[in-house]
Amino acid sequence: MSGITKEYCHSYTLTAGECNPQGMMPVTLFGARVIEVATFHANELGVGYARLVTDGLAWVLSRLSIEMYRSPEVNERYTLRTWIEGFNRHFSERDFEMTDSTGEVIGHARSIWMAINIKERCAADLAMLETLRESVSERNCPIEKITRFTPITAGEGVEESHYRFRYCDCDFNRHVNTLRYMELLLNQWDMNFHDTHRVSRLDIAFMHEAKFGEEATVRVAQAGENTFNAEICGDDVCYSRGRILFADSRYKN
Amino acid sequence: MSGITKEYCHSYTLTAGECNPQGMMPVTLFGARVIEVATFHANELGVGYARLVTDGLAWVLSRLSIEMYRSPEVNERYTLRTWIEGFNRHFSERDFEMTDSTGEVIGHARSIWMAINIKERCAADLAMLETLRESVSERNCPIEKITRFTPITAGEGVEESHYRFRYCDCDFNRHVNTLRYMELLLNQWDMNFHDTHRVSRLDIAFMHEAKFGEEATVRVAQAGENTFNAEICGDDVCYSRGRILFADSRYKN
Repeated sequence: MSGITKEYCHSYTLTAGECNPQGMMPVTLFGARVIEVATFHANELGVGYARLVTDGLAWVLSRLSIEMYRSPEVNERYTLRTWIEGFNRHFSERDFEMTDSTGEVIGHARSIWMAINIKERCAADLAMLETLRESVSERNCPIEKITRFTPITAGEGVEESHYRFRYCDCDFNRHVNTLRYMELLLNQWDMNFHDTHRVSRLDIAFMHEAKFGEEATVRVAQAGENTFNAEICGDDVCYSRGRILFADSRYKN
Repeated sequence: MSGITKEYCHSYTLTAGECNPQGMMPVTLFGARVIEVATFHANELGVGYARLVTDGLAWVLSRLSIEMYRSPEVNERYTLRTWIEGFNRHFSERDFEMTDSTGEVIGHARSIWMAINIKERCAADLAMLETLRESVSERNCPIEKITRFTPITAGEGVEESHYRFRYCDCDFNRHVNTLRYMELLLNQWDMNFHDTHRVSRLDIAFMHEAKFGEEATVRVAQAGENTFNAEICGDDVCYSRGRILFADSRYKN
């Protein structure tokens, strides 16, 4: 196979309109860019949406870990680089690096992608993409892999809230979108907390599809000074579990 | 003034991950692209965020009208073109055209932008940007201007729901983001309705800033077979009023 590109880069400009109330790139925007450059690279490698849909399959994000060391400035150009770290019949591991306009590394991400059968809504075999193995890169992603999460037990120190999924929470795959789960977690803290803390690492695993109209319970449990475990559960399944690590950060008005 | 560019174009690829459950570009994504290319053009003209902040001002979107004739296909390249239709001390009128990969026009938008004083939270005089008048384009935007809205009176045929604004609803200007108001309106209909209707025109006016933690009442009143008036109000102010026109559209699973 000639002409395979083991890495893909795309540059963006951070606009004021995209920033969070603290004037920084929201971790959800980093997440959106991760999904976008993964899509562009998969398309270039011939394993994107167009290829999978011919088998009745679609890519879904299974796990995501993001570390942000610094946000680009407003109007600053930044670049996302992506490469495949590993591939097997069950999933593809894809890593990301974000650099600012001077080339300094300001963030990393790790992701695990699976394919689902669109009609059956079950995990699909990726054996037909075996040639992807040739596209696996040697580049190292220095952040820790996502760890397993254990369920949160209701009780002292656990905060709970409820949310019913609505139309704009759902995406092309007709289930609740990745970025909405992330927002639902970030929404568990108020403006004052976000004015004094920034997300330094976010891990999230997507376990069961949530659908339009379903009601979720969001639970957050403090697990360290600035570390919180979180889960988003339905009546008898857990949609998503995650962990957020905050760093102290002072918003200057 | 030499080298002024009366028009600005930017091309994008519609990814599967960005599509709505009907496999189309959401009207909110068209809105996000409108805001983005307006930002890029303003930066190029030297009247962007960086210029306004030196006077303690920020651009805010005051009104937006969108018409979508068709969505780009998944993985299709599309282009947004923007130009200034008018400019005075109080506001700037900026228009948009969306074309697909063959150059066919598939959408238009009209927008009115004002500047606010970031500290005082009041409308600011734009006289210092007087040279913008030289950038006004002769290009025509064929869609109707946004009309005035009248308040919705609670009563028969009016549906009401409640929503409390949370962290991720707020943006750089520390108030609720434009696109969130649009989502709040679209969320008044269920998946089944959206599977049989697509937004053909959306008008929205932003009247008062909503802030973190405030509770809103969303009211929708049917004004024609596929036309709805809507408003998002707080305790004693109306944050936003709008109108949505749907067209029949059949989602093919």
